Amino acid sequence: MKIMARSGDVVAGFSGGYALGLDIGGTKLAAGVVRSDGAVASLLTRATGAADGPERVIARLLDLARDAISETDVASAQLAGIGIGCVGPLDSVRGVVQNPPNLPGWLEVPLVARVEEALGLPTRLENDATAATLGEFVYGAGRGCGHMLYLTISTGVGGGAVIDGVLHRGRTGNGGELGHIVVVHGGRRCGCGSRGCLEAYVSGTAIAARARERLAAGSPSSLAALPEVTAADVAAAASAGDGLAAELWEETGDILGSGLAGLVNIFEPEVVVLGGGVTRGGAGLLDRVRESALARAMPAVARDCRIVLAALGDRVGVVGAATAVFVNSSTGLR
Amino acid sequence: MKIMARSGDVVAGFSGGYALGLDIGGTKLAAGVVRSDGAVASLLTRATGAADGPERVIARLLDLARDAISETDVASAQLAGIGIGCVGPLDSVRGVVQNPPNLPGWLEVPLVARVEEALGLPTRLENDATAATLGEFVYGAGRGCGHMLYLTISTGVGGGAVIDGVLHRGRTGNGGELGHIVVVHGGRRCGCGSRGCLEAYVSGTAIAARARERLAAGSPSSLAALPEVTAADVAAAASAGDGLAAELWEETGDILGSGLAGLVNIFEPEVVVLGGGVTRGGAGLLDRVRESALARAMPAVARDCRIVLAALGDRVGVVGAATAVFVNSSTGLR
Repeated sequence: MKIMARSGDVVAGFSGGYALGLDIGGTKLAAGVVRSDGAVASLLTRATGAADGPERVIARLLDLARDAISETDVASAQLAGIGIGCVGPLDSVRGVVQNPPNLPGWLEVPLVARVEEALGLPTRLENDATAATLGEFVYGAGRGCGHMLYLTISTGVGGGAVIDGVLHRGRTGNGGELGHIVVVHGGRRCGCGSRGCLEAYVSGTAIAARARERLAAGSPSSLAALPEVTAADVAAAASAGDGLAAELWEETGDILGSGLAGLVNIFEPEVVVLGGGVTRGGAGLLDRVRESALARAMPAVARDCRIVLAALGDRVGVVGAATAVFVNSSTGLR
Repeated sequence: MKIMARSGDVVAGFSGGYALGLDIGGTKLAAGVVRSDGAVASLLTRATGAADGPERVIARLLDLARDAISETDVASAQLAGIGIGCVGPLDSVRGVVQNPPNLPGWLEVPLVARVEEALGLPTRLENDATAATLGEFVYGAGRGCGHMLYLTISTGVGGGAVIDGVLHRGRTGNGGELGHIVVVHGGRRCGCGSRGCLEAYVSGTAIAARARERLAAGSPSSLAALPEVTAADVAAAASAGDGLAAELWEETGDILGSGLAGLVNIFEPEVVVLGGGVTRGGAGLLDRVRESALARAMPAVARDCRIVLAALGDRVGVVGAATAVFVNSSTGLR
């Protein structure tokens, strides 16, 4: 079962009008009605309240979904289906959420069946970063490409790939974990249980932790005056000329570039799209990443590869999830 | 343009009888006639003599190809085509060898056109490791799978992937460089020009270099008595109980496992196939790699992933190249 699309074709080939996109994160739920040209007709968010467990979270999600529909003048009959982007691990083939660390109490929850039963529309489940990849590919910074990588760098690092117009999901939808390649063998402990993953160095959480460690070790910095240091603080201090912050930010770009170089060598993409809060921090990060990645990747693949910022911003969750519906409706499951 | 296959189907769907597989390495040329069930009807090798430049190497390759055909009782009309596996970089879409470091003097050589003109058969060009991946997938250790990774670990580290029955090649055929992911940011210098690649730690060349460095630093070892240390020497000494060799071998398995963990997180394969001389060195390498990789990969993807040794041995070059013909003949270019 594959999702195949070529940017642009999809919308042209899709005769429906709208899809409902749902996004389930550990801290935030989102629901939105998305038109087949990528326009967002409604977008609602609320706290996940993950600690309440699956039943209450699903009830909240269904309420939010109904509200997102009724906010628009789109009739249910105009909705081609529902796409759900959800934190993993999950099985997109069976439509089951397995046991995400960020959704305590969820264990083999048949989410697609639950949503179809409640809302009466054909529903697809994808890893949230995989769905976002599809959104950026069809409507965002990957428009017009056949080969694309997407990394979203915020609390954690998620990602996905489109290979010759086919969304890469791995065997059951848990592939494409681009944030969990090892870039420092035996390095920093990662939330996934391993060590030295890209996420353990360049996620917002990791940048903040690295800053705190350097401050605790006595490095002088304007950051020392802050009660709590975030990645955004590090970016702002780097822009303002703080030496330690600039060093941390440069290291971040450098390590991200190392990871990307390997990914570019594997995928030979036309474009690498970087999204998530950390990439919006400025302070020259994109330039540093480009320099680091393209100097390290093999010349034959680096030559024609662009590294750009994501285009969909906060809409990427619901747009990506809805895109999974449009793409399947226009090309069928393959 | 994609090569799609599902192990088993290919042979069933292919109505031709034979293909000629050619393999161009920096040190060795190989040519063989391969039957559509994977049996090798002839297999000839000779030195590449790469220093002689492209014209003489191509002449040698064509001679070897003609000899490989005439060694069998297969008529030219029974040959469905020619597959060439070649060291990269190359452009498999245009059939052009670009500028491989191991083939001095080659620059944008239109190899497919040259071979088609000389031998009169439709010809396909693939990266050598990509072709080998296809061979192991259809006829070797990946039989029966839909999702497979292949790494060949000898002088360098090559690799490839099959994703849901589709051979992954990247945009122009230079993707799938699984040996050039960064596993030690800022680490050992790699032949590709970058630093810290998997190849820079676990290739035969790298293992030997690491051994020499440790000996030069004064580590006591039976290896010190050898005039020149190879990876095979390290494996043999590790098996015989040498402390330094055992340590080097264990590090090798551990780092290879780190790299594989990231690749498994990206591809969610059913099986990872390890080929090449280093993997045949024994000394518990496979067990160490399995342990290291599957402990580090995410549980949801590691659970159903096997790591096994390659099955085709020295035939993989010509069988893989020929397989590219069979697969294209039965399914067409996609």
